[in-house]
Amino acid sequence: MTNDRVLTVVEDLERTLVEFIRKHGITHAEYRAATDLIIAEVEAGEASLLFDVFLEAAATDMDNHGRTGSIEAIEGPFYLPGAPWLEGPPYVMPQRPDEAGVPLIFHGRVTSETGRPLAEVEFDLWHADAAGQYSQIHPNIPDWNLRGRFRSDANGVFSVRTIAPPPYEIPKNGPTGTVLDALGRHFFRPAHLHVKLRHEYFGERTSQLYFPGGEYLDSDVANAVRDELVLDVTFVEGAAAADGKSSVDARYDFAFAPAVSDA
Amino acid sequence: MTNDRVLTVVEDLERTLVEFIRKHGITHAEYRAATDLIIAEVEAGEASLLFDVFLEAAATDMDNHGRTGSIEAIEGPFYLPGAPWLEGPPYVMPQRPDEAGVPLIFHGRVTSETGRPLAEVEFDLWHADAAGQYSQIHPNIPDWNLRGRFRSDANGVFSVRTIAPPPYEIPKNGPTGTVLDALGRHFFRPAHLHVKLRHEYFGERTSQLYFPGGEYLDSDVANAVRDELVLDVTFVEGAAAADGKSSVDARYDFAFAPAVSDA
Repeated sequence: MTNDRVLTVVEDLERTLVEFIRKHGITHAEYRAATDLIIAEVEAGEASLLFDVFLEAAATDMDNHGRTGSIEAIEGPFYLPGAPWLEGPPYVMPQRPDEAGVPLIFHGRVTSETGRPLAEVEFDLWHADAAGQYSQIHPNIPDWNLRGRFRSDANGVFSVRTIAPPPYEIPKNGPTGTVLDALGRHFFRPAHLHVKLRHEYFGERTSQLYFPGGEYLDSDVANAVRDELVLDVTFVEGAAAADGKSSVDARYDFAFAPAVSDA
Repeated sequence: MTNDRVLTVVEDLERTLVEFIRKHGITHAEYRAATDLIIAEVEAGEASLLFDVFLEAAATDMDNHGRTGSIEAIEGPFYLPGAPWLEGPPYVMPQRPDEAGVPLIFHGRVTSETGRPLAEVEFDLWHADAAGQYSQIHPNIPDWNLRGRFRSDANGVFSVRTIAPPPYEIPKNGPTGTVLDALGRHFFRPAHLHVKLRHEYFGERTSQLYFPGGEYLDSDVANAVRDELVLDVTFVEGAAAADGKSSVDARYDFAFAPAVSDA
């Protein structure tokens, strides 16, 4: 940020918050309750969760303004760099032999915004297991479980086999939970896949994809669902499948445009 | 706070901040820089300093609305309960034998808002030494130095001898300093005396008193100076004093009204 930008934004934030205090007649005790909550939040190891639940998606929307191609999404707190490269194709996400959950085929195509297929795009996919937990974050899950990298083929086509994640419940016993509770809100985010795409020329984009009709799709605690981020899903009945197992076919086509700052 | 109050305030704060993000086109990188700064602030042990510099005085103003009598002021971060009771009268604040600084007589009268003298009001006074440092907070100062308690007499009159504090410089090497630096602001608060008054019936009030004409009076980094909080000061030349020493005579009269919530 330039100094001019800092001046403009911080001075207006100060004005906006002082005006807010006056508008609501915020007492010193109420002000102190708010700052104590923020301190408790950081000390509880929830980092910026309190802010992210309320504000991160709005800031991400700003990044999408003026950019063509697929929109970006919030990264969330559980991305880890360095996920293993999958062997394939066909690609299968790292999972336990008895990994719970309905099988999911996540596939699609990645092109430039003008429709040119993009080969060798790196996909970095991570998502929760059937219990709504992430490897390396929650206990008793093998490292890199349901975290993996693979590439699009010469036609820009990609496909990976994994399991369908359930809705994710954010930590509810910390200060953020206290606030959401007071607001009468639930603690859930709809089921989602996190994915980063990387391309030699176009750079990196962060996406997050949701399931149509899924629970909490219209009441995401982080208010991050956007129509453009909903997968095209078909439920494949076991009887119709080669292996007799039901599965979910989830398609998403990415249009990869230069970032505004790249232009 | 009632649940209704939390709902009203927090939902409007969320709306206000989302609107702010949209108005300025705050990018995700800028949003993350802000949340990282808040996390760094708490981790640096500066607690709510960042918020207090910008917002605490505004919340304190709200407490003063609708209350008669002397206004209140921000407490600041360095109050400690349990300061020693001074022997007297005459009262002298705890200090080193060679305590630096111009001698100061802080005196005045405390009455009810209708002018009735209030006897036995407890004064709990604390302020910086001539180096701008506070005992028990900054190193190498005896415990309770320039911190002490005394009472008003039967006529509501109080008087205590101490030294005049200099302007106070807030911590400038932490995240708050970084923000103030980027805004091109200095780090000083004008010289001030902190005092809490306690009365059996009227309860407790927190004040903070400033010196007329003092440096930074018009540019307090915490924006907490109010006209009603400025002392009535006379500089007494040594030649005119009984002991030949120059001193500062600082008067303030407190009108003690019931708190709004007591009414």
